[in-house]
Amino acid sequence: MSYEATAGRLRIPPDTRRLIAQLQARAQRAVLLSLPSGEPRHYLYDILPNYPVRSGKGLRPVLCLAACQAYGGSYEAALPFAAAIELLHNAFLVHDDIQDGSSERRGRPALHVEYGMPLALNAGDALASVASAAAVRAARDLPAPVATAVLEGWERMTLETIEGQALDLGWQRDGVTDLTELDYLAMCGKKTAWYTTIEPLAMGAVIGSAAPWREAETFDFGWLLGLLFQLANDIDGLRAPPGMNDIDEGKRTLVLIHLLGAIEGEARAEVVRIMELPRGERSDDQVAFVLGEMERAGSVDYARDCLLELAAAAWRSADETFGPLPPGPGRDILLASTSYVFERSGLASWATWR
Amino acid sequence: MSYEATAGRLRIPPDTRRLIAQLQARAQRAVLLSLPSGEPRHYLYDILPNYPVRSGKGLRPVLCLAACQAYGGSYEAALPFAAAIELLHNAFLVHDDIQDGSSERRGRPALHVEYGMPLALNAGDALASVASAAAVRAARDLPAPVATAVLEGWERMTLETIEGQALDLGWQRDGVTDLTELDYLAMCGKKTAWYTTIEPLAMGAVIGSAAPWREAETFDFGWLLGLLFQLANDIDGLRAPPGMNDIDEGKRTLVLIHLLGAIEGEARAEVVRIMELPRGERSDDQVAFVLGEMERAGSVDYARDCLLELAAAAWRSADETFGPLPPGPGRDILLASTSYVFERSGLASWATWR
Repeated sequence: MSYEATAGRLRIPPDTRRLIAQLQARAQRAVLLSLPSGEPRHYLYDILPNYPVRSGKGLRPVLCLAACQAYGGSYEAALPFAAAIELLHNAFLVHDDIQDGSSERRGRPALHVEYGMPLALNAGDALASVASAAAVRAARDLPAPVATAVLEGWERMTLETIEGQALDLGWQRDGVTDLTELDYLAMCGKKTAWYTTIEPLAMGAVIGSAAPWREAETFDFGWLLGLLFQLANDIDGLRAPPGMNDIDEGKRTLVLIHLLGAIEGEARAEVVRIMELPRGERSDDQVAFVLGEMERAGSVDYARDCLLELAAAAWRSADETFGPLPPGPGRDILLASTSYVFERSGLASWATWR
Repeated sequence: MSYEATAGRLRIPPDTRRLIAQLQARAQRAVLLSLPSGEPRHYLYDILPNYPVRSGKGLRPVLCLAACQAYGGSYEAALPFAAAIELLHNAFLVHDDIQDGSSERRGRPALHVEYGMPLALNAGDALASVASAAAVRAARDLPAPVATAVLEGWERMTLETIEGQALDLGWQRDGVTDLTELDYLAMCGKKTAWYTTIEPLAMGAVIGSAAPWREAETFDFGWLLGLLFQLANDIDGLRAPPGMNDIDEGKRTLVLIHLLGAIEGEARAEVVRIMELPRGERSDDQVAFVLGEMERAGSVDYARDCLLELAAAAWRSADETFGPLPPGPGRDILLASTSYVFERSGLASWATWR
């Protein structure tokens, strides 16, 4: 797909854009209102809103709310689940930052830097527990088969994410460098797509239609959109400053996998040596060397081409999946969601865009 | 209560002792069978049984199963919940060891020592998620009001435990030394009693009787037994070798709180200085100094007196609570559970016992 064709699809109708922002704000309120309070405030309950109030992309709740509306339900019906997914996301972020030894999250110190690792880990446990309890409670208002489908979806989503995280962390721990593109996509599907796109869409569709079997309907699109989201993040992560860069952190990305398949000899051996170092032990020079090799081997271009292909597939899948639904604001959002992910990734304005 | 009177109550009928062991083995099998398998094995699913197969006290499932039988149900009905509580316990242990920087758990390396912190933290998340999903699934077989009561109990139990953990970790982080006995008991009630005794008993009673309101009936006994369990652990923790000692780890215990109230002047200032050090920075000499002061100030004797008082109160409460129930093996276990906790704590054979 050419840049022009892509750029043409990138436009999001102003009404849809406004509605997305409204739903994000609404979900954000629901998230904050769903957080319990009480004692101990200082060591626990004051910490819980810390990540949720730092504004994120808010993609997950919007997909869930839009799918529910598009499949015949109300935003209200999906709201507690949309908020619960966002809370679970924040729980994952807290633990992820501890696991990665990240110093920052969204421009502020990571939670474990602010409160110490033990209390941050504990707050992450609280967020995960509050999230799943909120889903269990909200499911009581649904017809029994719908409730069962939604809670089974919740369980699968949580475990898939943890499986993906295990792969990502394990590869980093062992300095694994013999990964294929398929390994990478399988890991992303689990670690990111399942809870970012697949299950938010499926839950919304099931709640909106009150038909458990419709959860399968949005799967393909959810998968593509989730991969697009992660790939965009990975390309973006290469532009981060030294010390917060994905190479620094030892992340296995599609760009890196391409590089290892594209070069040979001493340069490849050097890249392998660098990527096998434990996290945090790569020097700025070494990171710059890997980045340089990536540019030279065309790995960044390759990943960008993949991104365009994924976007084209996602647009097609959205048209097929949501085209037959009755027109309405939820459907408009789902049809525009690929552009939204593309746009928020920052790639549309990237200087090296071709 | 005198030692003689206590020793008299300490006897557990051989049949009851055998039944406890049988139920522990049954719960242990249920725990291992409830663990999912699949990929990634190496980085996730092979790690999950690691803590569950290291044999622990197994108190939680036994209390849940016994209460269910005593209140008119079958062991089978409570088994999935008993196993789920034990799984959640293991999830807490994994995260607790990371938070405390513990090197060992039950005589073997801690999980984060064996697999690295990131994968261990992630495995803990998996155990917690599998545990609560198992409870949600098992609740589908219960009458709706019973299911609601049990899952609300699960939610409360999880959050109370996390609150207690927050207090414990926060006090250690801040080197807090101005705690009262009441602060300590409130923390233990949350951190330990709620998921070790209170909720296993309440869930068993509710499932066994199919009467949600009966969850309140076992609360007082559960509270006393849970405090007894923690206090026994704390006294026991003072006998651990240097490096794994509770003073070393900076734990706030009843013994320490008594000491700080019993001494003054330079000795007290020195104890405060030592306990305000960050975890792991107390030398063996400093730990020995605090232990010596505890013996001299009668703090260990004081804690042992509290333990006897708690045991007497628990025995009384068990008689009142379970006495009116129809005779049976579950009731026998509940009536003997105080002795069981006492005995397993190792205190009955402590050389300095009076």
